[in-house]
Amino acid sequence: MIKKILIANRGEIAVRIIRACKEMNIQTVAIYSEADKEALHVQLAEEAYCVGPKLSKDSYLNYTNIMSLATLTEIDAIHPGYGFLAENAEFAEMCDECNITFIGPSAYAIQKMGTKDVARETMREAGVPVVPGSEGIIKNEEEGIKIAEEIGYPVIIKATAGGGGKGIRVARNEEDLKKGIEVTQQEAETAFGNPGVYLEKFIEDFRHVEIQVLADNHGNAIHLGERDCSIQRRLQKLIEETPSPAITPEMRKKMGDAAVKAALAVNYSGAGTVEFIFDKEEETFYFMEMNTRIQVEHPVTELVTGVDLIKEQILVANNEQLAYKQEDIEFEGWAMECRINAEDPFKNFMPSAGKIDMYLPPGGFGVRVDSAAYPGYMIPPYYDSMVAKLITYGKDRKEAIQRMRRALDEFVVEGVHTTIPFHQRMMEHEIFVGGDFNTKFLEKYTIMKEED
Amino acid sequence: MIKKILIANRGEIAVRIIRACKEMNIQTVAIYSEADKEALHVQLAEEAYCVGPKLSKDSYLNYTNIMSLATLTEIDAIHPGYGFLAENAEFAEMCDECNITFIGPSAYAIQKMGTKDVARETMREAGVPVVPGSEGIIKNEEEGIKIAEEIGYPVIIKATAGGGGKGIRVARNEEDLKKGIEVTQQEAETAFGNPGVYLEKFIEDFRHVEIQVLADNHGNAIHLGERDCSIQRRLQKLIEETPSPAITPEMRKKMGDAAVKAALAVNYSGAGTVEFIFDKEEETFYFMEMNTRIQVEHPVTELVTGVDLIKEQILVANNEQLAYKQEDIEFEGWAMECRINAEDPFKNFMPSAGKIDMYLPPGGFGVRVDSAAYPGYMIPPYYDSMVAKLITYGKDRKEAIQRMRRALDEFVVEGVHTTIPFHQRMMEHEIFVGGDFNTKFLEKYTIMKEED
Repeated sequence: MIKKILIANRGEIAVRIIRACKEMNIQTVAIYSEADKEALHVQLAEEAYCVGPKLSKDSYLNYTNIMSLATLTEIDAIHPGYGFLAENAEFAEMCDECNITFIGPSAYAIQKMGTKDVARETMREAGVPVVPGSEGIIKNEEEGIKIAEEIGYPVIIKATAGGGGKGIRVARNEEDLKKGIEVTQQEAETAFGNPGVYLEKFIEDFRHVEIQVLADNHGNAIHLGERDCSIQRRLQKLIEETPSPAITPEMRKKMGDAAVKAALAVNYSGAGTVEFIFDKEEETFYFMEMNTRIQVEHPVTELVTGVDLIKEQILVANNEQLAYKQEDIEFEGWAMECRINAEDPFKNFMPSAGKIDMYLPPGGFGVRVDSAAYPGYMIPPYYDSMVAKLITYGKDRKEAIQRMRRALDEFVVEGVHTTIPFHQRMMEHEIFVGGDFNTKFLEKYTIMKEED
Repeated sequence: MIKKILIANRGEIAVRIIRACKEMNIQTVAIYSEADKEALHVQLAEEAYCVGPKLSKDSYLNYTNIMSLATLTEIDAIHPGYGFLAENAEFAEMCDECNITFIGPSAYAIQKMGTKDVARETMREAGVPVVPGSEGIIKNEEEGIKIAEEIGYPVIIKATAGGGGKGIRVARNEEDLKKGIEVTQQEAETAFGNPGVYLEKFIEDFRHVEIQVLADNHGNAIHLGERDCSIQRRLQKLIEETPSPAITPEMRKKMGDAAVKAALAVNYSGAGTVEFIFDKEEETFYFMEMNTRIQVEHPVTELVTGVDLIKEQILVANNEQLAYKQEDIEFEGWAMECRINAEDPFKNFMPSAGKIDMYLPPGGFGVRVDSAAYPGYMIPPYYDSMVAKLITYGKDRKEAIQRMRRALDEFVVEGVHTTIPFHQRMMEHEIFVGGDFNTKFLEKYTIMKEED
């Protein structure tokens, strides 16, 4: 049995993992950068060691130091949390070579899902719906036009070697398409040395609906329902909830089955999330990507299913069979999460690092706070800006929102700006409260104004 | 509909009620004594008024001031919380006369249950098991001996006018009994001017098992399962949990039915608790008393049933039908509550008022904290010593205990002594963890030593 775990992360997720370990009588080793000496995860772990200077690349991403420490502290396993080393196949492999259990899927699964094209092909072969489009690179303009007519406009032209928003172009008609293919090919040739482009149907208005899966090393895989993460700003999720206001029990089953298929296709192990584009008009969904790690928004799933996902990750890593069968998973009530960031929502969400003078999280029935903040804590400017995840649970969506409102009102964070005012307005916003929204919500509606 | 509520209480229960009101869009009026100007309930309510000096009798028990304020602030209802005015029939009646809704049962029900003899007779008539004993006062020694033989020794001799531990005596045989009746009668005559005594079977080792009930003004009553509150020190409950490790589903149904009968017998309305002596050896139970108010330990019931008891109290007071039928109530998981008091457990639980310098409640999955404390809060010496209720929830008792351990470890309260170390030892105590204990636990086992 795993007796001692090194947590290769910081902030609230490091605290979350330490909590699960304590409840399982597992010893914990924390790592920290020079900027994180006073961090809560350092205080809560049984042992804590500095692994480098403040910048992530020198500390939390410093393989060598982390692996040396792992050997010295005689740990059995490493939990990578999310971000940093969580989806790094090379690191997972290195753990394997050092006979240390990496708490996550195999390097093989991470790699398969980490490469967009490969993931798309793997999913198509496994029978998981992918966005309609060309099978790989298009040969020429004519083939492009033919495919576009088949799948219908608008379409999206993507450079196979592209990424980070580059080598991507939308075409709304044949004219657009001809020009688009040419320009994108040229651009891709110049930028990536590879002119190959492929086509996909462009879905403009969709909900981000993702399915939580759990799989073990014995071929078992189950899903734990969906999370709706459509409220995003610049692709960053701000509010997540489960169930999704747009998903019926039948759709949940369909998407859940597809997600389990996706996991089984790469011999997945542990906790993972299959993200889908959900097209409400068409009542259909397409594979977007799979995140091969625990996610920030995992608590909402824990609250409606009662399953402790971090504990399950550890048990699976310990080679145990999943403790749950699909039919054991029941969904009860409604859970919502607001990410409270140290940002000034009145100033275009500008990061607001600094000292938290006063801190008092809300409490009471149906309120969960996952945070690494405390009174006097100095938020360093080097990492993400999350101060706390505020999660509420209620018998239905209405109660979850009512609880969120009162919990936001109670939450005291003084000394830095936070996104609490943004969330307060969201919880009063007619469209959000109504439940009929998609990922364009924050483009469409102005929630915060500079002059407020 | 009730739109504005005055909360005639302080501390965590005032905060708890304000939270429920906020979630229901009900305005709140807080009251406070001169010692509570800086209290959290004062900060959280929409309005707050000082009703008198620091001593409870001059402020929180000051009918006249509270009723004047109620009129001035145009509130619709008063929530008394627990303690103070919660079980005061006279106050409930005064509310009625002033056309203010008292959130609690009728003055009639409060009175019936508040008088021990009357409650015992009412319950016996309603078919709720009471401790075997004489029907009212015994006529003479011979009758006493006959009854004692019927119910079996040991028996307890109680002066009908007694109270507060006076006029009470245990008899283990006929000899004891003869002497006991004589002495108790003489004592009661001298002390209360009434020599009447009655007999009850003396149950030495029992578990304190109580049933939560909810009833409305339309004749509906349900129960929400039991709470085991056997861990007591000088009759003060310290740890409560649900379910009880000693109760089977069949016993839960029996006790639940009895509790519902008890509630119906006095036309009960709102949330109430029927306390029972549970004799594990005999697999039987007896009515102890009914608390006609919300109880400190109500959160454990909320966590396993999902029912918000404070909201239900308000809805019932608003004359609504109960939102739940008995068959809607399902019990899921295990919940445990530790009362964290500002007392020094190493110094015989001596109260430890003063300033809380640093305060950080635990968080994460399965942890609920109900508290009115904050960093810098000055605990006044005039009221009870509770700092926080720490409640954990898990899929089973083992997980609830594991969570409690890690939550206790995380809980930071600096500046005053607290009972956290006591609870930490309890959570490691083999007998407690084993679940086989009764109300004598803290007499039998030494948990804290002065020299520790």
